[in-house]
Amino acid sequence: MAKKTTKTPSGAKRVVKRNSEQTKKQLENLALSIVKMAEQAQDPAIAIPTRSLSNVSYNEKTRHVEMGGNKQSRNFFNYGQAKRFMQTMLVGSKCKDLIDIGKTASIRQIYYMSKHTIKGTKEKTFDDQSESDPIIEDLEVAIDTLREELHVFASNRGNLAGPITLVDDGNTLDCSAMGSAGYAVPSICEPDMIQFKKCKAKFILHVEKDTIWRRFHEDRFWQTHDCILSHGGGQPARGMRRLLRRMHEELKLPVYVLLDNDPWGYYIYSVIKHGSINLAYESRRMAIPDAKYIGVSSFDYDRCGMSDDVKIELDANDVKRAKQIANYTWFASKRPWQKEIKKMLSNGFKMEVEAMISKNLSYLTEEYVPMKMKDKKQWLD
Amino acid sequence: MAKKTTKTPSGAKRVVKRNSEQTKKQLENLALSIVKMAEQAQDPAIAIPTRSLSNVSYNEKTRHVEMGGNKQSRNFFNYGQAKRFMQTMLVGSKCKDLIDIGKTASIRQIYYMSKHTIKGTKEKTFDDQSESDPIIEDLEVAIDTLREELHVFASNRGNLAGPITLVDDGNTLDCSAMGSAGYAVPSICEPDMIQFKKCKAKFILHVEKDTIWRRFHEDRFWQTHDCILSHGGGQPARGMRRLLRRMHEELKLPVYVLLDNDPWGYYIYSVIKHGSINLAYESRRMAIPDAKYIGVSSFDYDRCGMSDDVKIELDANDVKRAKQIANYTWFASKRPWQKEIKKMLSNGFKMEVEAMISKNLSYLTEEYVPMKMKDKKQWLD
Repeated sequence: MAKKTTKTPSGAKRVVKRNSEQTKKQLENLALSIVKMAEQAQDPAIAIPTRSLSNVSYNEKTRHVEMGGNKQSRNFFNYGQAKRFMQTMLVGSKCKDLIDIGKTASIRQIYYMSKHTIKGTKEKTFDDQSESDPIIEDLEVAIDTLREELHVFASNRGNLAGPITLVDDGNTLDCSAMGSAGYAVPSICEPDMIQFKKCKAKFILHVEKDTIWRRFHEDRFWQTHDCILSHGGGQPARGMRRLLRRMHEELKLPVYVLLDNDPWGYYIYSVIKHGSINLAYESRRMAIPDAKYIGVSSFDYDRCGMSDDVKIELDANDVKRAKQIANYTWFASKRPWQKEIKKMLSNGFKMEVEAMISKNLSYLTEEYVPMKMKDKKQWLD
Repeated sequence: MAKKTTKTPSGAKRVVKRNSEQTKKQLENLALSIVKMAEQAQDPAIAIPTRSLSNVSYNEKTRHVEMGGNKQSRNFFNYGQAKRFMQTMLVGSKCKDLIDIGKTASIRQIYYMSKHTIKGTKEKTFDDQSESDPIIEDLEVAIDTLREELHVFASNRGNLAGPITLVDDGNTLDCSAMGSAGYAVPSICEPDMIQFKKCKAKFILHVEKDTIWRRFHEDRFWQTHDCILSHGGGQPARGMRRLLRRMHEELKLPVYVLLDNDPWGYYIYSVIKHGSINLAYESRRMAIPDAKYIGVSSFDYDRCGMSDDVKIELDANDVKRAKQIANYTWFASKRPWQKEIKKMLSNGFKMEVEAMISKNLSYLTEEYVPMKMKDKKQWLD
């Protein structure tokens, strides 16, 4: 891991540690191959793996949603592709600049950095961020890297608490003593930014929302159960997914997921476990195929003797989404998941994790989850 | 400050420190007054200050958006009010329970805790959370407290970094070494939860979004300029506003605000400075009348020699909102604000803070903001 010391004009020193040398090399190679084609009087072109649904499949062996081998050529001497060719080069060069100076930028900042009027014309390089975002994804797949390695970050979202000490940006942090909102998980969780130091946790409990997380944190669930307690503020952002995966893989921690009993909850689980369909190329470094869904299950209404206060009627969209999810290749072959989704449809209602609080404030943390953790038969795989 | 040790069933001990005894007393007094009215064969009633726009005004002296003195009586023997009367009592009793056991709940959790079928009927106490949320606000104003003192929390949002050491839930945290996402500001920032220990910062720079915050944090702006750097993830949540106000008041730190040059940015500033119109009763403990708006100003386009890459056309709604904000009592009498808003309208475009990055990645943190900090004439009050 290379250490680089940069000096800001104001004199403040900081150590930038990044292992993006490989990504930089790949960017340079991409540029050199274009130059070579030009010199050989060929039409400069980049091969970009297709990111459409038709090029996505489920790999039974790795249990990942993966991108297939289809590629498209993006050519300079093609009226329909020339602009996007130029944009790809431009964004690539901005990413190389970021790696060179050891700084990062958001996708919106990449847009502003890359936008300008093309000399001698009234044409802008980009008219809108909706043009630059897909170019970043194109680059990721073209040179087989993650946007974090291109020094581009998404919004940060999610927190965790528990008996783990990690080093983030050079700061050693004991996540069992980070205050009432816990450790803020950053958008970039690559090994050169975050290293694990000490961990006494035996598993990870990941919950959907920050309000539920606070209930568990206030009840010191992570202390009583020796675990890491995390939330993603809904669909977990890339940073949280990457960190969960790294803790699972490097620290050998099982991951248990507690989400709402609705199609959205099922979908979040699907993304955490197998990867996302839209960004299938990330699965390899973000998916956690061994993650288990511990609740809330459609069977918990009867199992836990809930009152009808917790029922939220399914609407037409819920029913449609539930059926779509039941047909996902990775759920279609699993009987327990088919039964789970069928039961929700026959219930005619969905339930939130918060529903468990309608019994009493501590039922969720002191009875429901401990009961779920004990009885493996209740887990959905 | 009372210390209370609670024991969870699993045996884990934790210290709950809360100074909510006064709020509890007020809840009890409210209940006792109802009992007394019933015993005296009067119609039990609660006086609830009106939370409508008609009862909100700007106090020139305190420079707060404040709630006026109008009150409405909520009676038990009134067909149109009986249900809400019952709901008010119910939510009040749940809040008292929370204070008693030293735990907190989200507004959604309060809804689930309070919802049940009324004995002998098929009637629910609440049909929807949209019924319980306003009841919490009613209670806040009726007994003159903050929801945080009722042990009810909102979502947490926002982070900060800088040379300040604080104690949060018993954990001592050095906010200059909290990792790449900084200290996560919790939803409850009352003095019994958070205490300030050491502070070397000279001012607070509050920015709108986390992506901009990251740019400043990565450039170690807070180190170079001895300041606290915070963001609210858009409109700052109650926790962040309360913490900003407390740092401003208790640590005597000036607050500078950097927001997008659009009506939404103006509005965020208005709320931070004078309080929100919807929740005017909070101003007294959340508003920061001395906060300064340092940018982005409509005049910065010419002043900083920006290119037209940064222009985002105003739409009809922007124009309407800008005119509304110009007419706010607290802006109407200020010539610089009138000029600022007029200039935006004549520009015909708005600009984001990110726009400053179109010059180069460091322009924002190394030139633009230092220039703004130096020249007080550019501040808007």
